Amino acid sequence: MTVNRAWRLRRRPAGEAAVGDLELVEEEVPELRDGQALVRTNLLSLDPTNRIWMSDIRGYMPPVPIDAVMRGLGIGEVVESKRDDMPVGAKVSGFLGWQDHVVADDALLEAPLTVLPDPLPGPESAFLGALGHTGVTAYIGIDLAGVGESDTVVISAACGAVGSIAGQVARQRGAKRIVGIAGGPEKCAHAVEKLGYDACVDHRADDWRDQLDAATPDGIDVDFENVGGPIMDHILGRLNIGARVSLCGMIAEYNTYDEGGKHSGALSNIGQLIMQRATIKGFLVLDFGDRFPEAIDYLGTLLAAGNLHYDETIRDTGIESMPTVLNELFDGGNMGKLLVRVAG
Amino acid sequence: MTVNRAWRLRRRPAGEAAVGDLELVEEEVPELRDGQALVRTNLLSLDPTNRIWMSDIRGYMPPVPIDAVMRGLGIGEVVESKRDDMPVGAKVSGFLGWQDHVVADDALLEAPLTVLPDPLPGPESAFLGALGHTGVTAYIGIDLAGVGESDTVVISAACGAVGSIAGQVARQRGAKRIVGIAGGPEKCAHAVEKLGYDACVDHRADDWRDQLDAATPDGIDVDFENVGGPIMDHILGRLNIGARVSLCGMIAEYNTYDEGGKHSGALSNIGQLIMQRATIKGFLVLDFGDRFPEAIDYLGTLLAAGNLHYDETIRDTGIESMPTVLNELFDGGNMGKLLVRVAG
Repeated sequence: MTVNRAWRLRRRPAGEAAVGDLELVEEEVPELRDGQALVRTNLLSLDPTNRIWMSDIRGYMPPVPIDAVMRGLGIGEVVESKRDDMPVGAKVSGFLGWQDHVVADDALLEAPLTVLPDPLPGPESAFLGALGHTGVTAYIGIDLAGVGESDTVVISAACGAVGSIAGQVARQRGAKRIVGIAGGPEKCAHAVEKLGYDACVDHRADDWRDQLDAATPDGIDVDFENVGGPIMDHILGRLNIGARVSLCGMIAEYNTYDEGGKHSGALSNIGQLIMQRATIKGFLVLDFGDRFPEAIDYLGTLLAAGNLHYDETIRDTGIESMPTVLNELFDGGNMGKLLVRVAG
Repeated sequence: MTVNRAWRLRRRPAGEAAVGDLELVEEEVPELRDGQALVRTNLLSLDPTNRIWMSDIRGYMPPVPIDAVMRGLGIGEVVESKRDDMPVGAKVSGFLGWQDHVVADDALLEAPLTVLPDPLPGPESAFLGALGHTGVTAYIGIDLAGVGESDTVVISAACGAVGSIAGQVARQRGAKRIVGIAGGPEKCAHAVEKLGYDACVDHRADDWRDQLDAATPDGIDVDFENVGGPIMDHILGRLNIGARVSLCGMIAEYNTYDEGGKHSGALSNIGQLIMQRATIKGFLVLDFGDRFPEAIDYLGTLLAAGNLHYDETIRDTGIESMPTVLNELFDGGNMGKLLVRVAG
């Protein structure tokens, strides 16, 4: 008998996910039926959107139902199988959920769950990061903005899983100037020294607005927006004519959702979209399934050539640490992709 | 000797333009030099953007300098001339300013000032409204949103100069459902009965949010946004996947600019742009100079065929009433295009 440990959502968080919002339960894994495979979770991905899924808001996916296993992306390995396309030992990537085992069947494959190539052309963890949904998000967002040689590009959460890749893709696209925004002098130093930003603004400094103005003397043509809130608002106030905002995330706002799905937010510079004839385009990487191969090929080539710096933080704190590690994302403590090792 | 009466901007308004912000002065018109023509102002156009031009903000044109004649669009007639392309009697349209005479020269023609065809193919006033910058704004904004047959279109300031035309252009484009938002039951009745909206939401009613939800049972695909503020925010919360917002104006916010050009504003539903993969596109009609003929031809054909309902309010209160009449725009009292007759 296999016991599965799973985080079930017991109530919708008010603000940061807290003790009592989720419960770690132990449940017996049922006997496999034909067409099923048992997957052991190796790594789980922590993404800001996890917090979105906990709230009852109009999202791109329905909220996680109360008492259901928390939704999450991960990489696992087939440990038992009654289906030919998922032999024992195969690595899979997709919506495994916050649990250490999951029964994969046709429905989960549609979620989607993907069987990874064997052998893997890189470290397992990269397929949740630079060569996974994170890297593809960065690639698509820069592509949608149409970054070109005359553009000053600003990237908030510049050292984050998505931002760190987006900055480097913008560099490859020949952007004139790439300015990151990150929290604290260490991250800012990393952004310039390792990730190749021309400048980095420390949004924890009192004078971050002045820093951002000074770092973008020719205004801002492209904003790869991950943060929202006052940072995005200040950026809107510095857009140039014809500017493009790729709206990827608004992490500053996710922890403000209350139990009822209401939240606060305030932008006063939206009017600059008119003055500068600018465009905000919201996008979700899940809409670009057909471009994953192109993006992964592009990023994989950069990585293989040593032209893509890739940071990850893997916590070895196990499935029991998932809610705590999720909150690290919002505290801004981690650099690059944040993962939890569950097994493997 | 001709005396010109002109409104000069003496200080930047805090909120609504008030007594003392502008001064009506009488000034002698200098003798014409070669290459100049004297234009008498017949009609002046009141536009929400007039208020923008008074504030020291990053606009699409520089703010009106302190002590300069207030900028404004109008139609006039040449009364003296020392240039061949502007004979006495010719009608002109463009940036005449808030004054009853203006000396036209090459610089003003570049502002631009346009010599209108003789005879005019419609009433003079229409060339500041349905067949002028107002109508072209409506046409371009609907075009940019790509309105199609499956779309629910929402238009704020539905009975305003731009909105009233935009709704009818959306109808011509075959939109599935067109919902207006206007202030008060009379305007809403007018919107449905005369302008052809399928429904109209009275934003002065306490339950306007419920009204808007009920009027858009299939959500919102296109927002032609003229208002901003809480109305725009509620619309963002009802966008469908792939929705487009043509951001034309934010009149709810223009009178909140203080002397220093700061203003308030708050949108909490921007995150829905991600969830619904929606786009906000700010636009300015002045960027579409090459499409004015196409737009005016389109609107003129509709008008001639009796397929375009066109409202205007012409105040016969003279040049001295300009600041007072401007504030009517923000009080929401007028229907359709608002003009002041100065002469003619």
